Amino acid sequence: MGAHTKADVAAALDAIAERPLSHVFLVACGGSFSIMLAGKYLMDRTAPDLPCDALNADEFICRSPARLGPRALVILCSQTGTTKETVAAARFAREKGAVTIAMSLDLASPLASASDHRVAYRAHYTTGESIDASDSNYAVLYALLVGLLAQRGQADLRPALATSLAGLQPTIDKAKERLCAPIAAYAESFATAPAVYTLAAGPNSGAAYSFAICVLMEMQWINSQAVHADEFFHGPFEVVDKSARFIALLGTGPTRRLEERARDFLMRYGDPGNILVLDAADLDLDALADPFRELFVPLIFFDVLWVFAYRLAAVRQKPMLEARRYMKKITNY
Amino acid sequence: MGAHTKADVAAALDAIAERPLSHVFLVACGGSFSIMLAGKYLMDRTAPDLPCDALNADEFICRSPARLGPRALVILCSQTGTTKETVAAARFAREKGAVTIAMSLDLASPLASASDHRVAYRAHYTTGESIDASDSNYAVLYALLVGLLAQRGQADLRPALATSLAGLQPTIDKAKERLCAPIAAYAESFATAPAVYTLAAGPNSGAAYSFAICVLMEMQWINSQAVHADEFFHGPFEVVDKSARFIALLGTGPTRRLEERARDFLMRYGDPGNILVLDAADLDLDALADPFRELFVPLIFFDVLWVFAYRLAAVRQKPMLEARRYMKKITNY
Repeated sequence: MGAHTKADVAAALDAIAERPLSHVFLVACGGSFSIMLAGKYLMDRTAPDLPCDALNADEFICRSPARLGPRALVILCSQTGTTKETVAAARFAREKGAVTIAMSLDLASPLASASDHRVAYRAHYTTGESIDASDSNYAVLYALLVGLLAQRGQADLRPALATSLAGLQPTIDKAKERLCAPIAAYAESFATAPAVYTLAAGPNSGAAYSFAICVLMEMQWINSQAVHADEFFHGPFEVVDKSARFIALLGTGPTRRLEERARDFLMRYGDPGNILVLDAADLDLDALADPFRELFVPLIFFDVLWVFAYRLAAVRQKPMLEARRYMKKITNY
Repeated sequence: MGAHTKADVAAALDAIAERPLSHVFLVACGGSFSIMLAGKYLMDRTAPDLPCDALNADEFICRSPARLGPRALVILCSQTGTTKETVAAARFAREKGAVTIAMSLDLASPLASASDHRVAYRAHYTTGESIDASDSNYAVLYALLVGLLAQRGQADLRPALATSLAGLQPTIDKAKERLCAPIAAYAESFATAPAVYTLAAGPNSGAAYSFAICVLMEMQWINSQAVHADEFFHGPFEVVDKSARFIALLGTGPTRRLEERARDFLMRYGDPGNILVLDAADLDLDALADPFRELFVPLIFFDVLWVFAYRLAAVRQKPMLEARRYMKKITNY
């Protein structure tokens, strides 16, 4: 993690150190919301005294949770910092007396300005810049939550996080080397699919969701849905036949069992040539320390899938970022 | 609400009256999980001292939340009471020291037996029996939660619930009369769609989810996804063109604003002939008292959509319940 980011995180945590807190809300939209699902997973697993919700920013405002008040911490995230619902959510949370921390690429953005405290992160997806993943949205979110837990006398995951952040970018680079070439072969089959489903559980749920809605739907106009690996068996699995296209994510943690069960079903009743499996067991994750091994797998998978998306876009002759017809093209909605 | 159901609810609540509680988990799979989303919405809106999570049953087990312990109440639901993940979740919760209440059609079922307390509800969807909606899953879940809140000295919503339950079935009957004939016209267009999306926010999210995964995918093998009405603008809306088929749900509560915004976009950039709108503002809901007006709308919508599903199935010549190829047909998964 870069010195600036580390200082931002420390300053935000210092500022709330004396504040009594009884709830954490993780609030964002779309791709930024997707990382909050992993943040909630971390909190659910490790925080007996800090219940946590992840909510879409405008849902958060309308729902106006009864637990939102002076004892609530609200962490908000928007890449550009201009997402209007998220900016409004920061204002709303402060009106309710909560303390707010913004995560954004831009510390001069409306979201950063609307929040009490602010932490910058970096991204390569839409900016194209070369970053170290220890400065990514996942890394910064975990640093905030881990710092919060340590500050409150709950689990001290700081050494494990520091170890994992140091090894994260090389781990991603190796994963790309291992996976990107073999999975490129699926682009031909997926290019003409009437629908592509992503499938995951636990901390991988956000990456599956983000790839479905922000990449396949947004940038390729492909019908998609992220399906939870157990919910799969309570309805969605009936769409499976030999022509069904699924991307199945398999992590390393306790929810891997759910993902394996769904993968096994897909391999049996689908056509393995149409089932793209990303399996963390195939990767060298030795540089990551528990519990961050399972918690960084969604970031690794998303980076790999981002490369796959470009391959898919090339086969479909539909350039990725240029493909949007509404987002950043029209404004009156 | 029938006398038996009322007695079941009262007995379950009496049994936990003296127990200190700091968290409520709502745990189920598929269609039963979908109602838990509305239960969480009710708790989020009205319970400052009882944080609440809604989780898929097997995710709940694997996640093993840090707040699951003797001060947790776990409400589980399975129609047949045989859903293996939900039965296992009840056992898991009890091992962790939590108190469990099962909701099921069958009080002799494995789920009911595995739980500390049990409440029967009734359903017409897959059983075909004629029921009063005050004995439905939504009604029983709300009765449990409302009783819990009153018992804990939080909001007393019992009078409003009693009023609403008395007027619920006539309200549903009128809604069906009002909506079923006009929306039947959409069946022809939806019959050949490559994908049908459902769209909702707040308490309607579960109904949209259940219709997408348990009806369109499970019983008609139609590609589908339930899209949150604000998340829609952060990716999914890019699939909208004149051929896109959406079912948009519009409720009556504070999250209606989100649903209106999405509906307006769909009407502008889609073809209104392919956008099926169910609008609670068109219904006579006078018999329902706040906050149960918005909270029973998803049940009303689901009942209306259930009729629509049969119309769709007739056009597609694909009978509803007979259409499953895996569920209740194969067992080794």
